[in-house]
Amino acid sequence: MLKVVIIGSGNVAQHLIGAFQKSDKVELTQVYARNTEKLQHLHGHLSVTDDFNRIAESDLYIIAVSDDAINSVSEQLAFSGRLVVHTSGSTAMESIDSKNRRGVFYPLQTFSKNKEVDFTKIPVCLETEDPSDYALLEELAKSISPLTYSISTTQRQALHLAAVFVNNFTNHLYTVGNDICTKNNIPFDILKPLIWETATKISTLTPVEAQTGPAKRNDTTTLQRHLDFLQDDNQKAIYTLLTHSIQSKNG
Amino acid sequence: MLKVVIIGSGNVAQHLIGAFQKSDKVELTQVYARNTEKLQHLHGHLSVTDDFNRIAESDLYIIAVSDDAINSVSEQLAFSGRLVVHTSGSTAMESIDSKNRRGVFYPLQTFSKNKEVDFTKIPVCLETEDPSDYALLEELAKSISPLTYSISTTQRQALHLAAVFVNNFTNHLYTVGNDICTKNNIPFDILKPLIWETATKISTLTPVEAQTGPAKRNDTTTLQRHLDFLQDDNQKAIYTLLTHSIQSKNG
Repeated sequence: MLKVVIIGSGNVAQHLIGAFQKSDKVELTQVYARNTEKLQHLHGHLSVTDDFNRIAESDLYIIAVSDDAINSVSEQLAFSGRLVVHTSGSTAMESIDSKNRRGVFYPLQTFSKNKEVDFTKIPVCLETEDPSDYALLEELAKSISPLTYSISTTQRQALHLAAVFVNNFTNHLYTVGNDICTKNNIPFDILKPLIWETATKISTLTPVEAQTGPAKRNDTTTLQRHLDFLQDDNQKAIYTLLTHSIQSKNG
Repeated sequence: MLKVVIIGSGNVAQHLIGAFQKSDKVELTQVYARNTEKLQHLHGHLSVTDDFNRIAESDLYIIAVSDDAINSVSEQLAFSGRLVVHTSGSTAMESIDSKNRRGVFYPLQTFSKNKEVDFTKIPVCLETEDPSDYALLEELAKSISPLTYSISTTQRQALHLAAVFVNNFTNHLYTVGNDICTKNNIPFDILKPLIWETATKISTLTPVEAQTGPAKRNDTTTLQRHLDFLQDDNQKAIYTLLTHSIQSKNG
């Protein structure tokens, strides 16, 4: 059994705790939390500490804290020479103090409080400073998801950025759609099946193949009517920029 | 049994033919197609004509042709005083020649050739010029989907526009994500679970509640690093505009 300690008590930490507790290939030895109350619901099932000097010996340590805190948490670890990884998409592996062997365990998903996720469908992006540590990290990841990928620091930065486009920016387009509906007394629910179909389509088509709409068809009448309809300058600007972007992408 | 004739042989027409053929509350009396070969696979199951003078008598006529052709097709109908509807999200009901009673039957979904759709999950937006025709049109719609909505012309224009944001523009953001992956030798598959989760989240949260990311957190370090990473001017412009839009939306 692979022994692992999780350091942190936020969203990612809590989802990882849940996933490892379900796995029969990993022993979650301990969780460190500055504020152990956040893990109160797990007491009895879990060894929890708030003392860096009492962190248990383990094969692997996962620092699942906010990006800004990774470095200082790693400095406070009272041991050295062990494998310590963080879970951040946008933080360099080198943020971890060099007294330990370093790596990254980045689950590419958006985690919300109180919303369970199925880890078997989450890609985990892995990186280790020392290639000989990779197998151990991969074994840990495979214990919760079959979707593991070896991803370099640069690739991870690219992925994190791509994720902003397909997740944060897409969600903002949903917000715009919602605002247009609200303004015209239309229930946003009408748009949801279309949103789901749009996301599903790319399982069988590339996004370029799946592209439809007035911008792609260069339907100037509809494009002008849409711009005339929009009154919000910000929405107009988004409409114009994304229309041009689609047109330049599709020749 | 409600009798219906479909005029057209494109994507929407073919999906509607399939849906009505499955329904036991509707009799698909006939299909008109300028080019009947496009319906060849349905011969034997269906009465098809390419002659406007031979269109069968029916309770309802659905014109499912391209937006530009709606008016001329409606003019060529050799009868008057009957209920004729089009399926377009962005065309005025008045495009239909006034010799017939007019309406709109707009299924809000993106239809692809060769990809079956489940009509019971598709919202159908209905409008009739004469309120006394509404019940008939609603009965037709309910025969294939429980999700029917009374939607005015202005609301339909708003919906069509909102659909461009949540469907066409969202798909374009998937294209940008795909391009970033390709450029960095990352399989686009890694992003798909995130895309699906983003679309699923809005079934339980409003888009504003679901918003996450560096723009929302005003994480200026990450925002600047992302802009530095991007080399494509177009991608930079999209990143900047949508970041500002998220920030102004979230105060």
